[in-house]
Amino acid sequence: MAVYTDITDSELAAFLADYDLGTLHAFKGIAEGVENSNFLVETDRARLILTLYERRVAETDLPFFIGLMSHLAQNGFPSPVPQTDRQGRNLKRLRDRPAALVSFLDGFSVREPLEVHCWQAGYGLAQLHLAAQSFSMSRTNSLGLAAWRPLFAPHAQAAEGLEQGLSARVSNDLDDLAKTWPSGLPEGVIHADLFPDNVFFLEDRFVAAIDFYFACSDMLAYDLAICLNAWCHDATGRLDLVRARAMVEGYQSLRTLSDSEVAALPALARGAAMRFFLTRLADWGAARPGALVRPKDPLEYARKLDFHRAHHAAPAAYGL
Amino acid sequence: MAVYTDITDSELAAFLADYDLGTLHAFKGIAEGVENSNFLVETDRARLILTLYERRVAETDLPFFIGLMSHLAQNGFPSPVPQTDRQGRNLKRLRDRPAALVSFLDGFSVREPLEVHCWQAGYGLAQLHLAAQSFSMSRTNSLGLAAWRPLFAPHAQAAEGLEQGLSARVSNDLDDLAKTWPSGLPEGVIHADLFPDNVFFLEDRFVAAIDFYFACSDMLAYDLAICLNAWCHDATGRLDLVRARAMVEGYQSLRTLSDSEVAALPALARGAAMRFFLTRLADWGAARPGALVRPKDPLEYARKLDFHRAHHAAPAAYGL
Repeated sequence: MAVYTDITDSELAAFLADYDLGTLHAFKGIAEGVENSNFLVETDRARLILTLYERRVAETDLPFFIGLMSHLAQNGFPSPVPQTDRQGRNLKRLRDRPAALVSFLDGFSVREPLEVHCWQAGYGLAQLHLAAQSFSMSRTNSLGLAAWRPLFAPHAQAAEGLEQGLSARVSNDLDDLAKTWPSGLPEGVIHADLFPDNVFFLEDRFVAAIDFYFACSDMLAYDLAICLNAWCHDATGRLDLVRARAMVEGYQSLRTLSDSEVAALPALARGAAMRFFLTRLADWGAARPGALVRPKDPLEYARKLDFHRAHHAAPAAYGL
Repeated sequence: MAVYTDITDSELAAFLADYDLGTLHAFKGIAEGVENSNFLVETDRARLILTLYERRVAETDLPFFIGLMSHLAQNGFPSPVPQTDRQGRNLKRLRDRPAALVSFLDGFSVREPLEVHCWQAGYGLAQLHLAAQSFSMSRTNSLGLAAWRPLFAPHAQAAEGLEQGLSARVSNDLDDLAKTWPSGLPEGVIHADLFPDNVFFLEDRFVAAIDFYFACSDMLAYDLAICLNAWCHDATGRLDLVRARAMVEGYQSLRTLSDSEVAALPALARGAAMRFFLTRLADWGAARPGALVRPKDPLEYARKLDFHRAHHAAPAAYGL
């Protein structure tokens, strides 16, 4: 939600001169993404988003992320299209940071998803999984099961400060998850962060997904579990069955889940809640007082963890 | 440089429904203006900027600012055009804040103005002064001479902390300015904040001015003096004669300065430097540690004050 690195018009004009994209007409910093600096760039021929990657994105991962967006776009999935300069490069440098130029996409995200949006998001997620099947690169999920306990340890006390008893509950959850974590399910490239703010709609139809900077190789059904957490819970942490059923149905309209995947969804959803609880907990502690970008509340995901802890053995609670 | 208040798509759609501007296609928060929250809004028919006015803009002043933009646009000056809803209102409310929708303008600001940009900015400023002549509303300059001493008093110690001796120098400057401040010069509506980031260029031609939220009634030549400070000094605080002459010449290509105005320019430039030094000094003290929006350095204007203190009696130093 900010521009961390500003650029000048002359820097941008020089940068654009490497591409066949016309001459600069307008550019504005946009408040999108908490991780990078983003600019809307307009030329006489194209509308683009310029991203300068700040330190939270590992530079060695960028060829995977940008390659994935290119691959998806070439396979009919509406992701931003990375632009290549005259030398065929789609990843360059600006202000001593990695920088990429991608197409601007119409559409806008919904802040309060309805049933229709959940169906469409499920459909879009399956479309992404299918389009990514032929992508040849892979990337380990650095925020998977193995990362959770080391991520929690330095913040266990902070969790206890947020809510009495939370630290012990999370620690028990981590034990449970280690014992019950599914394996052998279909894998592929997953978005891993397809929250409502990363999906664009037009007239309630899924028209684009953005922000592929957590994409990695993992179980496909885990991606759906992340989306169930992100789209289908109410403010108290309860899963809303109407929206959850719509999302799974939208997903299955393109890709049928196996029985094992369906059976694993509650455990995967519990793990997904853990993953976002932990990164939010870590960001919460690292926030500078008074900073304009407020970290997201870890307790939102503590409530979702409560739900999954209570119901993970009851498929009916998930509408399954 | 931030979005202070976020809005949801449903709020925006409901807001847009009051206008004949088509259906929502995209919206993004933009990092423009340190005072308000701004969004790029696109419909199937129009490209717009939505502004939510935060607490630093007095709500009672908004009819003047928005009326001025409408008047300027109607008189051929390229300012954003305030949009009226079906009931004829150009100022509404959203998220419990005053809100206005104006046209999106092509072009981009230059961070390092060259001679040509200074000529064009001078030309644009004169165009603004002429187009505003027939505007019937007026607004006292709340940051004029009378405001400076009260603005300085609570921060005199902070100034001394920034640089030894600065407090006494500024205090003497304030005495000088009170004694020598020009009067009887042509007055009208001035922009009062036409810095490079508030001017858009296309192919080095002035194509738009934005951010009218300091506009007020004052001496026209004072507006030119503000621009000389904002566009024509080098990093050490020295006035660059090439750029200063270009700006005055660009201005006079549309509106000839009287002999009294020319003679008053050094004193007015000294006052303009004081005005921006003082507000930057106040903002510097009020900044929260760690905030993402860094206040501008008051010492940049302390150096310009040094220049004017040394040269205000020597018109040649101003290229006059």
